[in-house]
Amino acid sequence: MDDGTMTEQAACAGFRAAAVAAGLKKRGGLDLGLIVCDEKAAAAGVFTTNRVQAAPVILSRERLGAGVCRAVVANAGNANCCTGQRGMEDARAMARSAADALGIDPEEVLVASTGVIGQPLPAERVAAAMPGLVKKLSPAGFSDFASAIMTTDLVPKIAVETTVIDGRTVTVTGVAKGSGMIRPDMATMLCFVCVDAEIDSGLLRRLLADGVDRTFNRITVDGDTSTNDMALILASGRSGAVIAGEPAESAFGECLTAALARLARMVVKDGEGATKLVDIIVEGAKTAGDARRVADAVAHSSLVKTALFGQDANWGRIIAAAGRSGAAIDPDRIEILFDDVTMVADGMGLGPEAEA
Amino acid sequence: MDDGTMTEQAACAGFRAAAVAAGLKKRGGLDLGLIVCDEKAAAAGVFTTNRVQAAPVILSRERLGAGVCRAVVANAGNANCCTGQRGMEDARAMARSAADALGIDPEEVLVASTGVIGQPLPAERVAAAMPGLVKKLSPAGFSDFASAIMTTDLVPKIAVETTVIDGRTVTVTGVAKGSGMIRPDMATMLCFVCVDAEIDSGLLRRLLADGVDRTFNRITVDGDTSTNDMALILASGRSGAVIAGEPAESAFGECLTAALARLARMVVKDGEGATKLVDIIVEGAKTAGDARRVADAVAHSSLVKTALFGQDANWGRIIAAAGRSGAAIDPDRIEILFDDVTMVADGMGLGPEAEA
Repeated sequence: MDDGTMTEQAACAGFRAAAVAAGLKKRGGLDLGLIVCDEKAAAAGVFTTNRVQAAPVILSRERLGAGVCRAVVANAGNANCCTGQRGMEDARAMARSAADALGIDPEEVLVASTGVIGQPLPAERVAAAMPGLVKKLSPAGFSDFASAIMTTDLVPKIAVETTVIDGRTVTVTGVAKGSGMIRPDMATMLCFVCVDAEIDSGLLRRLLADGVDRTFNRITVDGDTSTNDMALILASGRSGAVIAGEPAESAFGECLTAALARLARMVVKDGEGATKLVDIIVEGAKTAGDARRVADAVAHSSLVKTALFGQDANWGRIIAAAGRSGAAIDPDRIEILFDDVTMVADGMGLGPEAEA
Repeated sequence: MDDGTMTEQAACAGFRAAAVAAGLKKRGGLDLGLIVCDEKAAAAGVFTTNRVQAAPVILSRERLGAGVCRAVVANAGNANCCTGQRGMEDARAMARSAADALGIDPEEVLVASTGVIGQPLPAERVAAAMPGLVKKLSPAGFSDFASAIMTTDLVPKIAVETTVIDGRTVTVTGVAKGSGMIRPDMATMLCFVCVDAEIDSGLLRRLLADGVDRTFNRITVDGDTSTNDMALILASGRSGAVIAGEPAESAFGECLTAALARLARMVVKDGEGATKLVDIIVEGAKTAGDARRVADAVAHSSLVKTALFGQDANWGRIIAAAGRSGAAIDPDRIEILFDDVTMVADGMGLGPEAEA
């Protein structure tokens, strides 16, 4: 297989991936995935801000303290959440079974889980499936990996972006799952990003957090967050490009954010029951915080959602949501446009009536 | 008509009410209501916290500065919101036409509107209907008034509570409308309360605000607020009971809150498309603020709502909502009960699985 083909299949130099059916999803199919880096990768992550956190979130966050990682094992079908002390043991066992099969240090294995909560993870099925999973590892395995982490998702989500830094092509390969429990404030899904640049794990963490803030933290489907959300990034350094200082940092950051943005839009488009993909653009706000408050209030408004679902140009619901957002709004200067159709100017309706 | 019958029909000594069809609602029917106090009533109100406020909200708030009121005129079918300077003129004209017909000072007339926004109020229809409306005024007219202010409400909402203070029976008669755009933070509907006690308007304001905080500010239907919300209270003093100092203040406050609570529950029960009425009880919170944060997050969660609608005991959605509420939660001590069935104890699920 030549490099061209592998890029098409979402490869990233230095990484191999695979997935198998381990019997964790009720409906069957791929449900256990593994990403392995040939050598130690710089690693970073951002995690759910929910106070209730699943065992794999707690374990992976702890292990990322070292800033390095060799492998990530992820499963769907069982979230290993609200499972108490046994859940922590099962998360460690999941990492250890991967480490044993790969002959690496278990401390360098991160774990992620998604699916039903409150049920013990069948760690023995994970262990039993591990040798077969390791055997399937391949540079072209990201596609299977993306399928394995799907829950209510209808389509697998992969994005590949490249940029040239110091004359070397840097590849960012991201996979994500997410459809329900989607709202801002991290991170509302699982996301795994592999890059072949060489980069310090602290800088990697910062660029990931920036990128997530501009992408995943600005989407919403149902306004809820889950207990299992995480975005992990691993850097193999295999492209030979070194990300340190400008302009490399900005170029890499933009490339990473572009990949995250594509994944984030895929998540919204594949939102549970979603029929519309809507961009909310706020202009003229005094502060970025105010712009975000307005966007959040409008995006999370059930009445705005139902109006859009019903294709009803009820701008009254938008103005009411903006008005309660907490942002400093001058009611007499509100302007509302649907695409290029002006519905409200100077705080007064131009088109059809609305409700309040 | 004897007093007994009038109490049944929600009368309150010193007040008369009425409603007519003025052609403001598209579907016809009663849509213009009037409450008149025989003499000057002490008056107070609480208003929407939305930054976008309808003309009648602005006008009534301003006029309440004096703490007295003789009449309230309210309409449904048109919210007189997002109507600019003309809206303010129309609100004043609405008050003036009532004042002219009653032979009182227009400054002592409060106005309220609900319905479509962004359309000018047909003030000429209001004026034309006023003589007939005044002619219909009767102590037993609250029932018609309650019907006139309905928009998407399926049932009129009236609550009467009485208490004995200093040997005199005090009556609280409240009417409200509300079905959509219901969430806490005042006041998500229109509410008009008449009492026959004598009470200072400052104290009246405080007791109304307390009562609203414990009732209307704790209900939610769709999580949105409107631009037209207000709760007004008028006190005629006709019962002879004087509310000043304890125990009269507490007794009256409890009676008022009981009436508001009944109206608030009616609003939720009549929520647009509502099939369930759910009480959320939070115990063991470190602060009242934390209790409220948890209740709000759970109540506003679309996923919790859809689970309850579908009669799915998915406690995972409740635990996830509580976890993101911002309250200081100890995940290992979470307990969740549906009625008397314990679903989660010590942060672990006991019953069926959930999702995350």
